[in-house]
Amino acid sequence: MHTLTKEFSLIAKYFRRQPSNGELGQRERNQRQDVILGIGDDAAILKLPADSSLAVTTDAMVYGTHFDDLVPVKALGHKLVAVNISDLAAMGAEPAWLSLALTCPDINDAWLSEFSTGFFALADYYNCALVGGDVTRGPLSLTVTAHGFVPHGKALHRCGARPGDRIYVSGHLGDAAAALAGQQGHLPFTDIQQANLNKRLFYPTPQVALGQSLRVIASSAIDLSDGLASDLMHILQASNVGAKIDANALPTSAVLSAAIPNQSQRVQLQLMGGEDYELCFTVPESRRGSLETVVSQLGIEVTCVGVIEGDEGLRVILNEQPLELTKASFSHFGV
Amino acid sequence: MHTLTKEFSLIAKYFRRQPSNGELGQRERNQRQDVILGIGDDAAILKLPADSSLAVTTDAMVYGTHFDDLVPVKALGHKLVAVNISDLAAMGAEPAWLSLALTCPDINDAWLSEFSTGFFALADYYNCALVGGDVTRGPLSLTVTAHGFVPHGKALHRCGARPGDRIYVSGHLGDAAAALAGQQGHLPFTDIQQANLNKRLFYPTPQVALGQSLRVIASSAIDLSDGLASDLMHILQASNVGAKIDANALPTSAVLSAAIPNQSQRVQLQLMGGEDYELCFTVPESRRGSLETVVSQLGIEVTCVGVIEGDEGLRVILNEQPLELTKASFSHFGV
Repeated sequence: MHTLTKEFSLIAKYFRRQPSNGELGQRERNQRQDVILGIGDDAAILKLPADSSLAVTTDAMVYGTHFDDLVPVKALGHKLVAVNISDLAAMGAEPAWLSLALTCPDINDAWLSEFSTGFFALADYYNCALVGGDVTRGPLSLTVTAHGFVPHGKALHRCGARPGDRIYVSGHLGDAAAALAGQQGHLPFTDIQQANLNKRLFYPTPQVALGQSLRVIASSAIDLSDGLASDLMHILQASNVGAKIDANALPTSAVLSAAIPNQSQRVQLQLMGGEDYELCFTVPESRRGSLETVVSQLGIEVTCVGVIEGDEGLRVILNEQPLELTKASFSHFGV
Repeated sequence: MHTLTKEFSLIAKYFRRQPSNGELGQRERNQRQDVILGIGDDAAILKLPADSSLAVTTDAMVYGTHFDDLVPVKALGHKLVAVNISDLAAMGAEPAWLSLALTCPDINDAWLSEFSTGFFALADYYNCALVGGDVTRGPLSLTVTAHGFVPHGKALHRCGARPGDRIYVSGHLGDAAAALAGQQGHLPFTDIQQANLNKRLFYPTPQVALGQSLRVIASSAIDLSDGLASDLMHILQASNVGAKIDANALPTSAVLSAAIPNQSQRVQLQLMGGEDYELCFTVPESRRGSLETVVSQLGIEVTCVGVIEGDEGLRVILNEQPLELTKASFSHFGV
């Protein structure tokens, strides 16, 4: 809609990097042949591979709700791309195109420069093109719609988990939630511990290669944004199954073990804290060999943390005792 | 990212109308066969027709910037869909799928009910499916990404206008801008006049059928969001041409003529005021016959308002005298 002089030059300066109307974009190395028309017309025109479906996801980050002034602006750009691409990864999709709606209270060159640097660093890494968007004035808020490809019929869903399937997670769990708890003064970390944990909170890495490899291996998948317990419940509900999690098996980073020596406190954070942006997925017994081959080729760490069961609900076992989950999971509107 | 209990039920109650995980959506008549997976997983999975490119556009509406409490909430839902679909229309695209990022300060059932009623009334009219989105807490702000189809190589661009092409606009110009000016106390209207003008401001009609018909007729096209002078300038700049507009030819509604009898005041508003969401397009002399046939079949009014010229810049003639444009066009960040 309204996109006039200053907004246009703003977009051009920081965000236009695709060719438009025949002119050359600033960085040809990042140009995708499937972007027929990028930023600069009423809509982008894009070409999808013939054998693929389109995967589309939208995630917003709002100042005061998802982030505050403690988050470096460059990290904000990185994370906005990461959380959207993480959703594509959970579908087994290959990321391709991004749209950005940026609402900010004023034009701040330093802020825009930092933000776009973080944004494009990750977008470039995944060869994603920014193909359009909208810049408006208002309270700080960032919305990305991410588009990816997945071969017809090969998308990963939440609904395919079956009793007996093993439950896996990638990477380590709990660092990002610990960083948040530390920032909020709930846990006493040293400055170095806080800084190390912050890296995982500020710069999550979406598991794109793993997601695509899981297309023919996993029976279901989801990305971990709200916390393992909460996100796994979406798989369980969509699949009409239950699960048992072995909390002793939860993959834990050295920095988290050192920062939170108390296991039961740590496990609560790993199960209930969000922002990991790892994948949680289920694998039938018959495909566990394929999984091991794939993850060793990719050099990615995955850990079996439990098993799908026929009885509905989520049961967590810690040191052979049932564990009560204590913290209500994150909801912007309260629970 | 974060999408928990209350947010989910919120989404389900007002916005989930596509099948998901095998369950049936609430309104089967609006289900599209190309939505393989709708709301309820990490991303939507969508199928594009084999012969078509994807058109993608994103527009945000922010409280305090694009709208205020004077706008009926139902109109807000309508307009959010309309402004996005209008961008697709300007590309000659057929609308198909919408994503919605909704940021609101609290859960207000009455507000959500009104908003979603307006949103789906227009989305349903164009057979558009809501395929995903994000609901977050924060200052009121609405972002839609709209997706449409256009046959490969047939999209309308801004860059194809050539000297001698005639410049057309659809519908009438200026009613929405007059409504805004009246609301702000700049123009003295009767209550009935204001109410009639408000209809055009609150409930714009995107020119979808016209846009698709223009694929093989128009040499360039844009939708009128910022005002004819400003939007036509985008065509002129992208095409490296200029234009002459005959202000006497600007199509004017009866309600606007009555509300603003002073022609030169009215013409300024028609040229510089935005929010019409009509199409402005250029047609080579050789295709004017085709245009006349098409618009008579569609029952749509289009008006020739000027001609493309080789000399750059925009020249407006009123009563055979050059007209100076006086009001800086709208920009959120000032000009």
